Amino acid sequence: MEERNFRAMLERQWTRGKTVCVGLDSEYTRIPLSVRKPTVWETVLAFNQAIVGATKDLVCVYKPNAAFYGAYGDPGWRALQETICHIHQVAPDVPVILDAKRADIGSTNAGYVIEAFGFLQADAITVHPYLGAEALKPFLEMKDKGIIVLCRTSNPGAGEFQDLRIMGLGDPLYLHVASNVANQWNKNGNCAVVVGATYPEELRRVREIVGDMPILIPGIGAQGGDLEKTVKAGRRDNGGGMIINSSRSIIFASDGPDFAEAARRETIKLQDLINQYNHR
Amino acid sequence: MEERNFRAMLERQWTRGKTVCVGLDSEYTRIPLSVRKPTVWETVLAFNQAIVGATKDLVCVYKPNAAFYGAYGDPGWRALQETICHIHQVAPDVPVILDAKRADIGSTNAGYVIEAFGFLQADAITVHPYLGAEALKPFLEMKDKGIIVLCRTSNPGAGEFQDLRIMGLGDPLYLHVASNVANQWNKNGNCAVVVGATYPEELRRVREIVGDMPILIPGIGAQGGDLEKTVKAGRRDNGGGMIINSSRSIIFASDGPDFAEAARRETIKLQDLINQYNHR
Repeated sequence: MEERNFRAMLERQWTRGKTVCVGLDSEYTRIPLSVRKPTVWETVLAFNQAIVGATKDLVCVYKPNAAFYGAYGDPGWRALQETICHIHQVAPDVPVILDAKRADIGSTNAGYVIEAFGFLQADAITVHPYLGAEALKPFLEMKDKGIIVLCRTSNPGAGEFQDLRIMGLGDPLYLHVASNVANQWNKNGNCAVVVGATYPEELRRVREIVGDMPILIPGIGAQGGDLEKTVKAGRRDNGGGMIINSSRSIIFASDGPDFAEAARRETIKLQDLINQYNHR
Repeated sequence: MEERNFRAMLERQWTRGKTVCVGLDSEYTRIPLSVRKPTVWETVLAFNQAIVGATKDLVCVYKPNAAFYGAYGDPGWRALQETICHIHQVAPDVPVILDAKRADIGSTNAGYVIEAFGFLQADAITVHPYLGAEALKPFLEMKDKGIIVLCRTSNPGAGEFQDLRIMGLGDPLYLHVASNVANQWNKNGNCAVVVGATYPEELRRVREIVGDMPILIPGIGAQGGDLEKTVKAGRRDNGGGMIINSSRSIIFASDGPDFAEAARRETIKLQDLINQYNHR
């Protein structure tokens, strides 16, 4: 059995030509009637299993966002736990990023480490940078897990603090975050950064700073990011390096009983488009 | 029945001379043997009920940290939900802050809003500032809830980004966060900020900027913050304004069967010390 190390798994997925991250933002109320079960957790799990079954040979990474599960309380957490367990069983080559955007002081992060990597068995987690590397040590010490730091987020108002220019450096805050993650936080080779597809110029600048480090790129699809600009700005010279996420545009591509096939079709379409721009 | 509005509840608590926030960081493995039940969730709930029963006439606010519950998965979430429900029943005057340090893009924050204020029924939540006010709109629109923004955190490495000086302003990032929260984010009068007791000078500067806004102050006790300096730097001219948190030093003051009385004793001791410095 191959090692279950997030970075190594990612590199293997890229070698296989896989770049698409399917965001399992499986908001209960949007799940098609055809897959409904008597309880919330069974419904969400059945929906995710159908999406995974239809896409697992295509995707680079699955990325459930904790907010859509936590909103339903303990049944939501059960659905999330069983979803990740199911992915490990049917798609052992596909790493799972828990998009939870956590970060507290050190002793408290130990609780989040257990939440993400013990209870939920994720391969990677997204974290906020605001408290610094010292606070995030319990995450950064998890050598086989991916620690994916928010750098330049995809939302329209991302610049409020992220674009503030730092005295003595001249560069905006998000580049300073990228630089610290690449040069100081990554001692275990387990770090990555998040840059939204809605900001291709910022993505290009981050790629220059972080070298070969993986970049998780949300913002394609419903959020309107330009795929061609994104791929050209985010790719690394040796290929791979990008985890390009699409959530709602794939998992809710159809609200009929054909939702899983529609998700497969959208995943193929997105990977084909990425390939087209990635080889120019 | 009085309105259940976080800010109004806080102001009433301050009028009653209450300043202490008891942090319900009820890490399962540290819970005294005398209170153990057959399951994790029953044990954590029984411990919290005992702490609340022994301190509810004294405390200003209770603040469970989500990390210590999420680490145990769905039973942890059940314990947290039932703890908050219990506090509302036996101590209806005491608001509950969910210390969850959440923040995602807007449409996803809607999930966290339901997690915190629907499923868990908290009165306030702590959030990261990094994505800006536009992303946090689903939180900021909750007029009766408290939105408590991380500003200057209590950890030793807090300065990595928070102390970076901003071009054109000269001031460090954490003051820029304080200023935006006070002057732009607080349209509904529901904002507050977090400043660690481990940084009294920074606390003084934040108080100057945010005026009468509530400040949540962790870092007393196990983290070593100086109480006298903290109170003098954090108090507002008209009294009140501070939520001074202590977690482990109160709830784990004794590991014997007298843990609840010990928690009461420590709460009284902390409030007395605060009063002493607050009246000089």
